[in-house]
Amino acid sequence: MDITTTPAEMNDLTMSEKSRPLLEAVKQHIRDNVDPILEEFERLGQGRADRFSYAPGQLELLEGAKQKAKEAGLWNFFLPNAETGEGLSNLDYAYLAVELGKNPLASETLNCSAPDTGNMEVLERVGTPEQKEQWLKPLLEGKIRSCFGMTEPHVASSDARNIETSAVLEGDEWVINGEKYYISGAGDPRCKIMICMVKTSPDAEAWRQQSQILVPMDAPGLTVVGPMHVFGHDDAPHGHMHITLENVRVPKENILWGEGRGFEISQLRLGPGRIHHCMRSIGAAEKALDLMIERGQSREAFGRPILDLGKNMETISRARIEIEAMRMMVLKAAKAMDVLGNKEARVWVSMVKAMVPEKVCKIIDEAIQIHGATGVSQWSELPDMYTKQRTLRLADGPDEVHHNVVARAEVKAYNQDPYRRQE
Amino acid sequence: MDITTTPAEMNDLTMSEKSRPLLEAVKQHIRDNVDPILEEFERLGQGRADRFSYAPGQLELLEGAKQKAKEAGLWNFFLPNAETGEGLSNLDYAYLAVELGKNPLASETLNCSAPDTGNMEVLERVGTPEQKEQWLKPLLEGKIRSCFGMTEPHVASSDARNIETSAVLEGDEWVINGEKYYISGAGDPRCKIMICMVKTSPDAEAWRQQSQILVPMDAPGLTVVGPMHVFGHDDAPHGHMHITLENVRVPKENILWGEGRGFEISQLRLGPGRIHHCMRSIGAAEKALDLMIERGQSREAFGRPILDLGKNMETISRARIEIEAMRMMVLKAAKAMDVLGNKEARVWVSMVKAMVPEKVCKIIDEAIQIHGATGVSQWSELPDMYTKQRTLRLADGPDEVHHNVVARAEVKAYNQDPYRRQE
Amino acid sequence: MDITTTPAEMNDLTMSEKSRPLLEAVKQHIRDNVDPILEEFERLGQGRADRFSYAPGQLELLEGAKQKAKEAGLWNFFLPNAETGEGLSNLDYAYLAVELGKNPLASETLNCSAPDTGNMEVLERVGTPEQKEQWLKPLLEGKIRSCFGMTEPHVASSDARNIETSAVLEGDEWVINGEKYYISGAGDPRCKIMICMVKTSPDAEAWRQQSQILVPMDAPGLTVVGPMHVFGHDDAPHGHMHITLENVRVPKENILWGEGRGFEISQLRLGPGRIHHCMRSIGAAEKALDLMIERGQSREAFGRPILDLGKNMETISRARIEIEAMRMMVLKAAKAMDVLGNKEARVWVSMVKAMVPEKVCKIIDEAIQIHGATGVSQWSELPDMYTKQRTLRLADGPDEVHHNVVARAEVKAYNQDPYRRQE
Amino acid sequence: MDITTTPAEMNDLTMSEKSRPLLEAVKQHIRDNVDPILEEFERLGQGRADRFSYAPGQLELLEGAKQKAKEAGLWNFFLPNAETGEGLSNLDYAYLAVELGKNPLASETLNCSAPDTGNMEVLERVGTPEQKEQWLKPLLEGKIRSCFGMTEPHVASSDARNIETSAVLEGDEWVINGEKYYISGAGDPRCKIMICMVKTSPDAEAWRQQSQILVPMDAPGLTVVGPMHVFGHDDAPHGHMHITLENVRVPKENILWGEGRGFEISQLRLGPGRIHHCMRSIGAAEKALDLMIERGQSREAFGRPILDLGKNMETISRARIEIEAMRMMVLKAAKAMDVLGNKEARVWVSMVKAMVPEKVCKIIDEAIQIHGATGVSQWSELPDMYTKQRTLRLADGPDEVHHNVVARAEVKAYNQDPYRRQE
Repeated sequence: MDITTTPAEMNDLTMSEKSRPLLEAVKQHIRDNVDPILEEFERLGQGRADRFSYAPGQLELLEGAKQKAKEAGLWNFFLPNAETGEGLSNLDYAYLAVELGKNPLASETLNCSAPDTGNMEVLERVGTPEQKEQWLKPLLEGKIRSCFGMTEPHVASSDARNIETSAVLEGDEWVINGEKYYISGAGDPRCKIMICMVKTSPDAEAWRQQSQILVPMDAPGLTVVGPMHVFGHDDAPHGHMHITLENVRVPKENILWGEGRGFEISQLRLGPGRIHHCMRSIGAAEKALDLMIERGQSREAFGRPILDLGKNMETISRARIEIEAMRMMVLKAAKAMDVLGNKEARVWVSMVKAMVPEKVCKIIDEAIQIHGATGVSQWSELPDMYTKQRTLRLADGPDEVHHNVVARAEVKAYNQDPYRRQE
Repeated sequence: MDITTTPAEMNDLTMSEKSRPLLEAVKQHIRDNVDPILEEFERLGQGRADRFSYAPGQLELLEGAKQKAKEAGLWNFFLPNAETGEGLSNLDYAYLAVELGKNPLASETLNCSAPDTGNMEVLERVGTPEQKEQWLKPLLEGKIRSCFGMTEPHVASSDARNIETSAVLEGDEWVINGEKYYISGAGDPRCKIMICMVKTSPDAEAWRQQSQILVPMDAPGLTVVGPMHVFGHDDAPHGHMHITLENVRVPKENILWGEGRGFEISQLRLGPGRIHHCMRSIGAAEKALDLMIERGQSREAFGRPILDLGKNMETISRARIEIEAMRMMVLKAAKAMDVLGNKEARVWVSMVKAMVPEKVCKIIDEAIQIHGATGVSQWSELPDMYTKQRTLRLADGPDEVHHNVVARAEVKAYNQDPYRRQE
Repeated sequence: MDITTTPAEMNDLTMSEKSRPLLEAVKQHIRDNVDPILEEFERLGQGRADRFSYAPGQLELLEGAKQKAKEAGLWNFFLPNAETGEGLSNLDYAYLAVELGKNPLASETLNCSAPDTGNMEVLERVGTPEQKEQWLKPLLEGKIRSCFGMTEPHVASSDARNIETSAVLEGDEWVINGEKYYISGAGDPRCKIMICMVKTSPDAEAWRQQSQILVPMDAPGLTVVGPMHVFGHDDAPHGHMHITLENVRVPKENILWGEGRGFEISQLRLGPGRIHHCMRSIGAAEKALDLMIERGQSREAFGRPILDLGKNMETISRARIEIEAMRMMVLKAAKAMDVLGNKEARVWVSMVKAMVPEKVCKIIDEAIQIHGATGVSQWSELPDMYTKQRTLRLADGPDEVHHNVVARAEVKAYNQDPYRRQE
Repeated sequence: MDITTTPAEMNDLTMSEKSRPLLEAVKQHIRDNVDPILEEFERLGQGRADRFSYAPGQLELLEGAKQKAKEAGLWNFFLPNAETGEGLSNLDYAYLAVELGKNPLASETLNCSAPDTGNMEVLERVGTPEQKEQWLKPLLEGKIRSCFGMTEPHVASSDARNIETSAVLEGDEWVINGEKYYISGAGDPRCKIMICMVKTSPDAEAWRQQSQILVPMDAPGLTVVGPMHVFGHDDAPHGHMHITLENVRVPKENILWGEGRGFEISQLRLGPGRIHHCMRSIGAAEKALDLMIERGQSREAFGRPILDLGKNMETISRARIEIEAMRMMVLKAAKAMDVLGNKEARVWVSMVKAMVPEKVCKIIDEAIQIHGATGVSQWSELPDMYTKQRTLRLADGPDEVHHNVVARAEVKAYNQDPYRRQE
């Protein structure tokens, strides 16, 4: 895992020449087509009756921007070229993710919102022609949205083998029973399909018991109980929903890739999504640092700007240092996926997943402290930023699980390297 | 500040014999009269139209419990005996505060809610007979409530000299202009009076420019703009309100203790309130620790209770150690107020104010982590507990201000002690 | 383990009236009889040929001070009165330990050096009349010194059951084979006896396999291989020695208290010794804080004393807060031994053992940083202070073992308390 | 300072193709010519009478290896090609530094030991032909060694303007008076020349008062008082010496580059040296991690390898993550020097100087903890590794100075960037 054993090219973290025009085009699109609609989009939203709906006019604004992205050839840019099979590298995507993180509508106007991108990737790679026709096509067209049903309330999701939602084959149908929560995106009225992790094969060996199944959101027996909160926020209309499945029946063909391949499919999706999240977390840390400096310069106490008091300058230095270190690590993890493939790169992905949200939480918390009471109020973005990052330390596996992945890989690497062992 | 220079008795932190029956009586009262009404009180509250109001029946429940406290002789127990002048020591009060912290209605049923207790103490000590008749009497009877107007949105409140709200004497009236925020308790419809920190004497020396003035909440020109949020919560109906004062006129006599004595009055009130808060923070840490153990024992991952995984047991040990250390420090600060007086004890108060909320935040955060996604959800008390403690690191002076008080006292003590200097 | 379940008296941490004259007498003795000889003692020591010996004149200086302690009635003050059985409480001893820590010769002149005190206590409590006559008597008279053979180089001493040195009964003799290291005090030429932890009963249950045996230092087969270093220091002539035992034979009667009681005896000795160490650690932290302030005030950079730069003032505040918190915790642990007995108090002892050296290391490290290069040089006491405290985090059980003791007790307390469980 | 404002190429951190053969050749040289002589070199050294000397045979061993380096064309590889002016980039040198760090004799056999490399660079760039002939030539030939006289005992060296050693021009000579300490390399009997920072122009503006002057070590009035210790170690025969200068006279021409240019010259030397140190620090962290795993697997407690107990696995993960992050940051700082030049890159250099030694200290400290008592003993490399890294947090500017450089640059960047300010 160190420079003596990883390919030299893994340290070339520059964006490819060929993707730079795309980066510029995306920046231009956000500046011209997305930034101008944000304020009205939010204003309209305040008038809606049901928090998990859109007010008249909101979707029209979005569709307008989506149309412009299509015209500019940016729609679905994350997908490999259908003819050449060539696509964006993870590294290049990481650079783009920084820009996407700057406007909350940006991703959707380019059809690259989570969790749709992951779901589309999975369908693209392991879906049957029928599955693709029914679900991938409308997703690619931006006509529907989707969710991914992983976490369950009654078991420790840090160990994915604990998944208890069961799917039993009865004739030509899977009968699904269980409970999921924190299903992000399931609150959106346009969400039509869930890729659901279920236990189909309780008698197989531990890592082969789970499968992934396509479950339409309108399937009888599937109930969206309500939104799970995050420090009191419901994140409507996207939402992190609590869902029960009672005798939900779906056709036998809705299984993805075959029984017992649930974990294999997870490998396909989690890497890029985590990189994407981590780059956006770094964007949040940059923002917190800006707010810290702004506030520190504009307030005075004891006759000096508070920036000059106590440890505040050191706090700023440490924030900058950690931000740069995180940036390089996330770029390197993206590059690792390009060079080594998702499976081999998973230790790098776990490294950044365990590293980034924890450090970003600390930076935002320090920005809050420098703001005084305003830092916890509705006048500041910081409380939302904090709760979002805090939640990332638990989503897609808590920090502890990723540290465990890294540590086990490290011990194994040590044991396999006679040079390290002998010293 | 160490054992060689503080009175030996400061290390006797036992509750006094004479207060132990009171502790038992308060516990009994909470168990018999408060615990049984909490659930209905909260259920009723859900039906209210305006968040800053009470639903029919809510106040009746409260009054019933208040009546029982009066009958048991527990009403206003925090006040010194009018005849003997003898009252609860701060140390004894600290022990009681632990119990008060266990039910959110407990303090009010005993008429010892913040910020009323501080306001009553101030009125008792420095109020004129007229001020006492008009405001102290109904407060003591529990007929009205009150607030304290300190923090302002446009200046760094870490330096109290920054207070900008001005009061100018015009004839027989003070004319007040300014803006306050995070005024706790001002959301309650029963809140009738604010003790307001204002600048009356801009030409006096720095520490004599501020005064405290009684401002009725219904004074023309006083507007409650709305609630300030704390990580998205409005804490209704108590509330932390944003208030503007535009040409608010109050009689000349409404000033407390005289012009320029604003800081002196603050010394009277802040110590005990902070001790109270700190004991309740420790209660929150105890609760977080309980939840951590409960969750850690009831969930399994990788074949073992998650309590046995990784650093979780060490986290529990460290939480217990810090809790006990904080408890002794808060008791000692309370004792210091008893032995040394509020003024001399202020370094001890700053020590616990800087120490406790920061450490309690960390413990609650660790409890969140062990809970997984549920730890940030509405199914857990932890998110509310966290945001409350996080806010305490900013209220009544941010941590940094208190560290500065402690450090300056320490340097002074060093410089005055030839024994320390010579070594 | 909290205030609701521990006896109220545990929070009275004042020194007893009756011990205060002793405290004064000990201070006087150190000032009059020990402080004046320290410089010459050290000067003489520089001339000695063998580091593990005393130079001519050194022991005479020591004996002079010891004689004066005897005359003042302070000799062996740590022991209970032979007639009344009454002795110093652990709490009172803790206050005395602070004073003993201020001069490196003080303890020895009062015959209360480690590990002799622990050894004398053990012999006093479980020794046979013959053992007392042969070893306790000369120890009480200060004629010989002793050591305790616990730690072994080839096993993890964090788990005491790992002890491998074996003692096998052959006829009337124990035959001992094994290896010990970090045997403190074994370097002193006056050290004549080792209490040695050995495995006598490998087939007994885990906690009954070990015993403690008296092994004369001149027993054939016992070899002092040399001193173990602590960050390069050998701590001569006291020393932390590496010792091998090859077919060392001692009489059957040399066993203490009987086979398999090794762990029971350990319970007797470790508590008070740890309290003593912790109080001295706090003394070291006080010293580091003094040095920090002194240096911070006397050096300037960028036009201001470095004390006023960056986070230095906050560092001082945090140091003072932690020192006071540690002091209260150590006093409380001492009191717990008095009130609850060594066995029940062992969780309190583990709490301070896990808490104190780690925090003191941090404080000393911060003092080093404020000193610049001088802080790591021979011109400063700080490097020695640091390495000593760092070693304490490993001696008598590493931090991790003590955290485990605390955590297990906490979980057990939670499970046994229906009030905590139900909430 | 972020990716939007730094040149894209700064993220290409691969070693250049053309330097890879050199890396291989250096590895080969160390393996073939240096590793085999280390043990004998150290064995011989134990016999020397004066610690600040070499025993017979030691220098011969070194000279043999140096001769082989010359034959292999590796001698002075760090220098730019005299004809083409082309040389190793800082980035490539960073990769080489990792290898040099693995054997304590490696650097010297290639004539690239500190502080000689820095001194040679300075002489090369700003020396007069006479200065080069007299001092640079024998340094390049490896015939003499040199030192750099910066730090002084009586002023805070964190502010370089505090330098007090004075040089006064009297006729054709500078008369130098002052005191220096921690002058590394001045203990070596082969050290013949010191580049000495002195104050020549006390009346100039603050940053133009200092100059650098060549002072032969045998100049009358220059006294090497003795070695400064680092946690008790003297690092002989290299040494960190305490030196006094009393009326030392050197010719007027010995000044480098002209009066008042002392700080300018410092800019030339400190960057690369710090990168070099940081890469070696990372090597030390790697070593500590290896030792941690080795020990953790080979010891058992409570029935399991201690690696599996408590937080040890998480400690390993965190160490690996921080090591990788540090590696990328140091490589990026090296690249910054290549792309931006030493002056512009100085913020990057300060970032790694403030980041690396602190984090490496923590990793080594954790390795010590996992080793138990052996971790502080002479049986382990860890104590030496720790004290060396701890000292680096104070050398070449304490952490605080570098954090200040970073923070000031960050605030300036913020203020100059309208995009950041407006958000």
